[in-house]
Amino acid sequence: MASIKVHGVPMSTATMRVLAALYEKELEFELIPVDMRAGAHKQEPFLSLNPFGQIPALQDGDLTLFESRAITEYIGDEYSEKGEKLMCPGCNKVKALTKVWLNVEGQQFDPIASKIAFERIFKGMFGMTTDPAAVQELEGKLVRVLDIYEARLSKSEFLACDCFTLADLHHLPVIHYLMGTDSKALFESRPKVCEWVKKITARPAWAKVVDLQKQ
Amino acid sequence: MASIKVHGVPMSTATMRVLAALYEKELEFELIPVDMRAGAHKQEPFLSLNPFGQIPALQDGDLTLFESRAITEYIGDEYSEKGEKLMCPGCNKVKALTKVWLNVEGQQFDPIASKIAFERIFKGMFGMTTDPAAVQELEGKLVRVLDIYEARLSKSEFLACDCFTLADLHHLPVIHYLMGTDSKALFESRPKVCEWVKKITARPAWAKVVDLQKQ
Ligand SMILES: N[C@@H](CCC(=O)N[C@@H](CS)C(=O)NCC(=O)O)C(=O)O
Ligand SMILES: N[C@@H](CCC(=O)N[C@@H](CS)C(=O)NCC(=O)O)C(=O)O
Repeated sequence: MASIKVHGVPMSTATMRVLAALYEKELEFELIPVDMRAGAHKQEPFLSLNPFGQIPALQDGDLTLFESRAITEYIGDEYSEKGEKLMCPGCNKVKALTKVWLNVEGQQFDPIASKIAFERIFKGMFGMTTDPAAVQELEGKLVRVLDIYEARLSKSEFLACDCFTLADLHHLPVIHYLMGTDSKALFESRPKVCEWVKKITARPAWAKVVDLQKQ
Repeated sequence: MASIKVHGVPMSTATMRVLAALYEKELEFELIPVDMRAGAHKQEPFLSLNPFGQIPALQDGDLTLFESRAITEYIGDEYSEKGEKLMCPGCNKVKALTKVWLNVEGQQFDPIASKIAFERIFKGMFGMTTDPAAVQELEGKLVRVLDIYEARLSKSEFLACDCFTLADLHHLPVIHYLMGTDSKALFESRPKVCEWVKKITARPAWAKVVDLQKQ
């Protein structure tokens, strides 16, 4: 029995973030599905794993964690010797740059990009209708973020430095969904961003996450 | 000349977050005002410090950082021997809990609470009018977050553990503003949350941040 348990579903962006980190680290884990249609995430026993009633939650032995980005950082620290390095090794100054770009994802990219994914993908899944005006406004904001990414990626191969780090990985789930929509053009029209998207989505660990969705 | 420079203004919540960490660490720094009315944050030379055109930015020697929460984590790591510990010392499992609650602030609390502060405080400062329906909706969401905080703070003295950490500190600026509005009642009606707010706002380092606003 694997000691690491992930409670979540493979189509959830926040769950995918954690799965990507686990595969990068080549760790064994058990994915325990949460029946969201039945509202299992808003009831016990799930609420004891995450009082906010959101997936994913992670158990590693007797440790329970939630918030996908806290989980991936824990995986990176605790299993630093396994699989891929997900933080650029080095002094506090080098680590600080990774933290800057981790925060950029969480504070600047995700609040906009995940709303576009909601409008363009998830609303449809839940029988709701996309609001084109909302999409347009959000895309106007995303373009400003992607212009900054384009400039950044002209100076380093990945966001934080020349290595792939969690700062890149955290973008994967939402980018994956957006690349299946017309928003794709915003990424593809920026050469450095386009190259970066290709590189990060081509990682073998990411292919395994996408495969899980097909099962 | 102090080697640490903070570019920002003392009434900005994100700047206050960084100032609180610097005072907790008893570090010398220079606060370099950014003339936001004149749009200095959207022009060079500021954009070279933070391409997103937001305050604060920090310079420490030749290192430049932005995103307030990345800056406070850098300060905690780089100056771990000085002033207050801002991360609970211990193994990766202990640190992971701090990361969970750092993410709760950034992902669950701030997106709601800072919008209430915007409606109730900053709109007035900028000659705009508070939207009571928006406030009501946001407060309905904040209550659900604060109920989870109440349960958490019944089990540990602070959010991550029994020590004050960055996870608590990051809440200070927005809570400071909300305590000057009718939203105060949401915090005060929850005994553990009320006690926690009293404890964290009473810290000498925080008093220094508030004093800076009076100058
Ligand atoms: N900030 C959280 C977000 C988690 C989240 O929003 N999960 C979604 C699925 S991707 C969920 O559980 N939604 C149900 C809900 O919010 O009620 C994280 O990164 O883990
Ligand atoms: N996530 C950023 C937010 C910074 C932020 O929103 N700063 C505000 C002042 S508190 C600002 O510069 N606003 C001007 C703008 O966004 O154009 C951080 O934590 O540093």
